[in-house]
Amino acid sequence: MSFSPLLMRLIDTLRCMPGVGRKSAQRIAFHLLERDRVGADELSGALAEAVKGIGHCKRCRMLTEHDTCNICAASGRDEKLLCAVESPADVMAVEDATGYRGMYFVLMGHLSPLDGIGPSELGMSLLEKRLQDGVVNELIIATNPTVEGDATAHFLADLAGKHNVQASRIAHGIPLGGELEFVDGGTLSHAFFGRRVVD
Amino acid sequence: MSFSPLLMRLIDTLRCMPGVGRKSAQRIAFHLLERDRVGADELSGALAEAVKGIGHCKRCRMLTEHDTCNICAASGRDEKLLCAVESPADVMAVEDATGYRGMYFVLMGHLSPLDGIGPSELGMSLLEKRLQDGVVNELIIATNPTVEGDATAHFLADLAGKHNVQASRIAHGIPLGGELEFVDGGTLSHAFFGRRVVD
Repeated sequence: MSFSPLLMRLIDTLRCMPGVGRKSAQRIAFHLLERDRVGADELSGALAEAVKGIGHCKRCRMLTEHDTCNICAASGRDEKLLCAVESPADVMAVEDATGYRGMYFVLMGHLSPLDGIGPSELGMSLLEKRLQDGVVNELIIATNPTVEGDATAHFLADLAGKHNVQASRIAHGIPLGGELEFVDGGTLSHAFFGRRVVD
Repeated sequence: MSFSPLLMRLIDTLRCMPGVGRKSAQRIAFHLLERDRVGADELSGALAEAVKGIGHCKRCRMLTEHDTCNICAASGRDEKLLCAVESPADVMAVEDATGYRGMYFVLMGHLSPLDGIGPSELGMSLLEKRLQDGVVNELIIATNPTVEGDATAHFLADLAGKHNVQASRIAHGIPLGGELEFVDGGTLSHAFFGRRVVD
């Protein structure tokens, strides 16, 4: 016994989303059909338009429906600073939390050979062109402090060195409000060896 | 600073799904746009067709794109037995696990006055008609053993009594393979008072 063909198809296609298995897909399908058909219709339209319209900014690879994203298109930002991040959400996080007014480069992932994600999938040739043309004088590496993020950071630092661009990496250590006692050993060790002279 | 309008719209509409908040919606949007545009396109099509095509079986309220679902349309099932369940997934679970060959009635939820779900939202008038016409002689109540499911079960039992139809409820107790020591008190108490004579 199984659901009707259209319902089966909806449940199957819902599973293309990360973290959605068979049970969640069923729950989502029933919810949408039973309680929110307007939302489902809007989602269908938004998905179709996003797939058709959204591409990458030709300068920084940010997701946008325009040729260049609004940060690259903005005037008055410091072209000498380039910050490499893993995802569009990281751009927003840096913009919101810091006063950084330089440019970004969005890798859209991290090096992960097992998933088939190498330098070309991360747009490294585009990044290399930007490092080559002599405008950028510091590459701020803001990849995540994970194994893959660290590997990506090393790769980026090498790339910057090759083109005589100063590479820097954002600091890792005890988060504000954190307590030494409860922080994991890796972070504490990082914080310890990354200590700075108090002046 | 925010994402481009199309991307914002996609992230907002993804939140119509249950259990998807702002962060998950972002993650899903980036994944679909970056790694699975084919899947996103298929999902958009499946959603549109499902919303347009899928309605309720006119006999049992099961989700289907036809007038009657394939269980109601099947010949050779026992019309005298009617099993009330909360969701289409429950129909599948009963079909797969038991040898039950009667009919179903899908409530598509449970009584939940705070969410505005009363008897009419659960199609009780349609159920009442089926109990009235004299074909059904047992209503098997298979709502979930939750507070709302119990309230719904009481309501259904009253409805059956009003039309002189025998109501029964599926048994609740220790699951097979479970151990008394680790089962919760409510279930154990239920199992204890629901004990049956061994013959």
